[in-house]
This record gives sequence, C-alpha cells and structure tokens, in this order.
Amino acid sequence: MSTPAYAAAEAKSLLAPWTIERRAPAAHEVQIEIRYCGVCHSDIHQARAEWGGGIFPMVPGHEIVGHVGAVGSAVSRFKVGDTVGVGCFVDSCRECAACREGVEQYCSGGMTATYNSLERGTQQPTYGGYSTRVVVDENYVLRVPAGIPLDRAAPLLCAGITVYSPMRHYGVKAGDRLAVVGLGGLGHMGVKIARAMGAHVTVLSTSPSKRDDALKLGADDFEPTGDKQTFKKLAGQFDFILDTVSAPHDYNAYLGLLKRDGTMILVGMPDQPTPLSAGPLIMGRRRLVGSLIGGIRETQEMLDFCAVHNVASDIELIPISKINEAYERMIKGDVRYRFVIDCASFAKASA
Amino acid sequence: MSTPAYAAAEAKSLLAPWTIERRAPAAHEVQIEIRYCGVCHSDIHQARAEWGGGIFPMVPGHEIVGHVGAVGSAVSRFKVGDTVGVGCFVDSCRECAACREGVEQYCSGGMTATYNSLERGTQQPTYGGYSTRVVVDENYVLRVPAGIPLDRAAPLLCAGITVYSPMRHYGVKAGDRLAVVGLGGLGHMGVKIARAMGAHVTVLSTSPSKRDDALKLGADDFEPTGDKQTFKKLAGQFDFILDTVSAPHDYNAYLGLLKRDGTMILVGMPDQPTPLSAGPLIMGRRRLVGSLIGGIRETQEMLDFCAVHNVASDIELIPISKINEAYERMIKGDVRYRFVIDCASFAKASA
Repeated sequence: MSTPAYAAAEAKSLLAPWTIERRAPAAHEVQIEIRYCGVCHSDIHQARAEWGGGIFPMVPGHEIVGHVGAVGSAVSRFKVGDTVGVGCFVDSCRECAACREGVEQYCSGGMTATYNSLERGTQQPTYGGYSTRVVVDENYVLRVPAGIPLDRAAPLLCAGITVYSPMRHYGVKAGDRLAVVGLGGLGHMGVKIARAMGAHVTVLSTSPSKRDDALKLGADDFEPTGDKQTFKKLAGQFDFILDTVSAPHDYNAYLGLLKRDGTMILVGMPDQPTPLSAGPLIMGRRRLVGSLIGGIRETQEMLDFCAVHNVASDIELIPISKINEAYERMIKGDVRYRFVIDCASFAKASA
Repeated sequence: MSTPAYAAAEAKSLLAPWTIERRAPAAHEVQIEIRYCGVCHSDIHQARAEWGGGIFPMVPGHEIVGHVGAVGSAVSRFKVGDTVGVGCFVDSCRECAACREGVEQYCSGGMTATYNSLERGTQQPTYGGYSTRVVVDENYVLRVPAGIPLDRAAPLLCAGITVYSPMRHYGVKAGDRLAVVGLGGLGHMGVKIARAMGAHVTVLSTSPSKRDDALKLGADDFEPTGDKQTFKKLAGQFDFILDTVSAPHDYNAYLGLLKRDGTMILVGMPDQPTPLSAGPLIMGRRRLVGSLIGGIRETQEMLDFCAVHNVASDIELIPISKINEAYERMIKGDVRYRFVIDCASFAKASA
C-alpha cells in the first residue's frame, strides 16, 4: 500500500514529504495505522548521519502508537482495532541467548531497528513512524493499555523504556534516593517513573530555570549543577544516579554523590570519551553501568506499570509539517519534554 | 617496649633502622610478635609521600603475620602462641553503617590505617609491620589457619583480600570466564583465587614473557595486550575482568572484552584519569566497578578459603636490610610476585 511519510532524502537534507510502500501483512504480521509518533533526539543524529552512515532516503520514528488495521493469517496476539505500539526495533535473530532471555536489544546478531536498518528477510530498508502505517511481526508489537492518553504514550516506547529498564534491572525501590541528571526527554520520564517506583527523586540540572518544572513533574528536590557547592552538599547521598545527559560531562563529580555501593546508570551517550578516575569507584565500591532501551517483555511491563501509576510523557503535539522546526528546537533544548507527531496531519499535508 | 623497626625519616628518604615504642597491650589488645611482613606497592607511594602528605618518620607495612606474644586482660578471641595476622587497618569507628555491616574499610569516619595514620584514642601515629612487634585491638586481628606457609600468608592480608573481596561480592563462580589484567602482586593472587573459585582464568598482560608464569600460577590462558588482535579475538568473551593495573590504560578496550552484563572490577588506582566512553557500557549493559581491600570478617573468610584451597602468595623472602633495593626492583616490576620481609632479620640488623 502506498503510504505517506516524511523522509530525509540524504544525510543532512531537511525532512520532506515522500511516499513509501508498505506490504500487506504476512502471516505473523500486524498492520498498524499510526496515530502518533514521538520525536527522539536519535532521529536527528540518524537523519543527519551523525553516527556514521545511514540508509537514505530515511523515514525516522521509533515511538509509534496506533491501532491495528489488519492482521496476518497466523496472528494470535492482536486483532483489528487493538491499541498498540512499536518501539526501537521490529525484529531480532530470535535464537541467541539475548533473544531467548527477552533482551532482544542486545541480540548478538544485531536487532533490526525500526528505521535505518535492513529487514532480516528481504534486506529492504526499514522505515519508521513518520508515516501513517507500518507492518510489524506480532512478536515485536506492544499492547498500549487503556488509560494512558495515546499521544502521551508514544514516547514511552523509547524514552520511557530506556529509563525504566535499568531502574528495574538494578532494583530501584521505595525509599531509595535517586538523582536524575538532565531534565530532557529521558530525564523527565526518569523523574516520573522513579517516583512511581517510590524513590525520593532529586533532579540535577545545569539550568536553574528548570526547578519549577522538576518539582511539578514530581521531583522531591532540585539542585543546580552549575553551583560547585551542590557537589559538596550532596556528597555520598544517593543510592542511584540516572544520568541522561548526552553531552560530555564529568562522571567523577557525579560518582562522588553516590553512597557506598551506589550505582550510576548511563543512558546518554556523549559523542566523545570523558576522563574517569578509578578513585571514586574504588573508595565507595561504587558502580558505573550502562543500559540500552529494553526488551519486548520488559517494554510491555513498563507500559502496564505506567498505566497503573498514571505515568505518561509530557509532550508538545505537532503536525508533521513542523518536523524540521521541531528538530531545531530540540537541538536548543527547547521542548517540554517530547515532540509528538500527530499522524492525522499527513492527510492535511498531502491535501 | 622498645622495638626495632625500619622507617622513612622523611618523605623520599631511604628506609633506615629506627626504634619505636610499642605499649603493653590494653584490656582488648593483642601483642603480636611479627614473623613476616609483605611489601606492598602502596608502601612505596606512602613512604615517598606520593599520595600527598604522610606522617614521618613512617614505618610502613600492612601485610603482617606472626604469633601472639601477650594479650590484654579482656581479650577473648586469642591466646598466647596463636598464629595471627594484621592487614591494612587496625581500627575504625565501629558505629557507622559500614562498620556495623563488617565493611570497615569504608568506615564513614575513616579507617585507622595500620601505618601512616593517627590512633583514634591517643592521636599518636600508627607504625606498621617493618618491625618486630605490634599491638592491635583483637577485633582487628585475623587468625591465620594452619596449612598456609606463614611467609607466603603475609601478602594475603592486602593483595589477597583486595582481589578476593570483589570477586565474592560480585559472585564469581565455577565456570565463569574471568580475565586478570596485569600480573603483579595483586594479579598473581587474582589468578590463584579465581581459579580456586572455579573460574576459567585468562591473564592479559603487556609482557609476553609472563606467559609461562601465568600458566604455572594456574591460568588457563594468556594473551598479550600489546597485540591489538587480542582485543578483536577476545571481544565479548568474559563474565569478569579483574583489572589490577595502576598505570593509566584504556578501560574502553577492556570493557569491549566483557560479555553482556559483564563486570570489570578496578582494584588498581592509576594516578590520573583516563578517557571513558559510555558506549561499551551501554551497548552491553556492562558494569565498571571499584573495590577497596575488604572487611575483617571477609578477610578471615578469605584466609580460611585460601587454607582450604591451598592458595598462598608466591614470594621472594628478603632481610629488612634489602628493603630499599626491593623498592627499586618493585618499581621496575622485577619481583615474582611479592617481597616479604623476614622479621627475624631485625635481630641481625641491629646486632
């Protein structure tokens, strides 16, 4: 089926209307009519080939929610009309230890990304959620529970799971003191989910102007990191630090804020290495760890958790025609806290 | 009691004979006649004030073994003649969470080091094991089990526990694949203890000449790190990396050798930070952790473990008169694998 989309024709070109072909669903596939798609910072990096290479034309978007429009003959888990989502990947080898354990994001054969990847079977490029329709194997489709506003659910598929997974994996629990470093798309979800887990949450940010927002999002405290006193005052205070910042920053200073046996979780990926001292790790038996999105089972668990705890993303809804402007605002950090594309706007864009 | 010792009179001066006063044991104290004392690389750093400051004259030595010569009136755990040891610290606050949990090395009030520290009560300097006698509170004295040759037991009190503690804490178990980086005092104990825990041990070293020694110590494999192919060949192979190197080196390259969910343990403390990339941590949910010696209970557990598994240090026994020469050789890495002072040599030195 001919499907409207927005694509970057080549590295660094602006996104513009394009038409893609979506096949009819095969036996195990689900055809999803896309309602909303979140805009992740990694969309910009990939559309601009900033991570090296890229498959062009590229249709970004991996925070997809919508309704099932059709199902293949063997689909058992979904039916037409179901509210569903698709996250960062649409396939994996299904055979390696990681796939068998349900952490497909670490598939040893490499996950098939929702866009900017090649399908395992056809070797055709995958195209993402900046479009109105997508066809995905039912094993890689999530169920979006009733109760989460659908537009505000979209960013859970990447930003939400990225912060939920390591907090679960490392056992964040009620009463833990947790700091969220950086209050952007990931950070604001970190605040909400950590609070829902019962943690006492402090936001650490370079922007003192974010204090009110942090508290409104549910943070218990806010401390500005531009003030060096902050690092003295908070030394040894936290069980966990969730570091969402993808610009280079001094890990050592933050490690000093952990209690003994505390854990600092990196989910932001600065584009260059930063100096690390062994001292802060050794002197408090501290841990510096990383984590990449989450597996399918855990993503479903996260969606169900968010529904129970009334957690959803804070968003600015935009028509697809505003996507290039949204990119520019994101680069300046000017979004509270995630742009989400209203995919009904494609009809108007092509009208 | 007047007690012969060797001291650095001031920062950077050679060690030379000196006489210290050891008090008669107070109610809870044990007087130990020192038989052997291991020579730790940190002795050199401290005697030369390379870690900033230092209390001079300084009598180094925190790998002490000997026999109980006298006990205070209230001592219940030891009797005259018992074979005992003292490690890196001789006191701590006994009240903080760390002390209560038995990880006194992380005492929030700061542990009282065996030397180069001030006693909590008297505020007098502590003097270490480069002497013939020491008086220590019974709660900070270890029992050295029969079956470990006493001279070869001494280095267990620092080098042994430094590698045992994190391997236990992070759960090294039979069948795990573990790499030891660096084959010095710590590294050679890492090989022996990891093997005794049932791990498959690979030594990674810049010195290809250490291959035979590594295998003789019990390593299953040896790989030279000067060969860049090593890092390709071993990518994603290890559950654990025990990094004992205290010279700056590239953590990122080693992190790439870990499996998903693998743990790299830092026990060596380079004197300057090295660049760290978030990528290797995030892409495999890997952990970079640090660890500092071990607590009293765990040190006892380690000694008992070593006795059961016939683990002891490989040493070169020296008279105290050779200590300055030993330091020079250690700086060149020319020791297999720990110098141990025969404290009977003090009698000859003063004769």
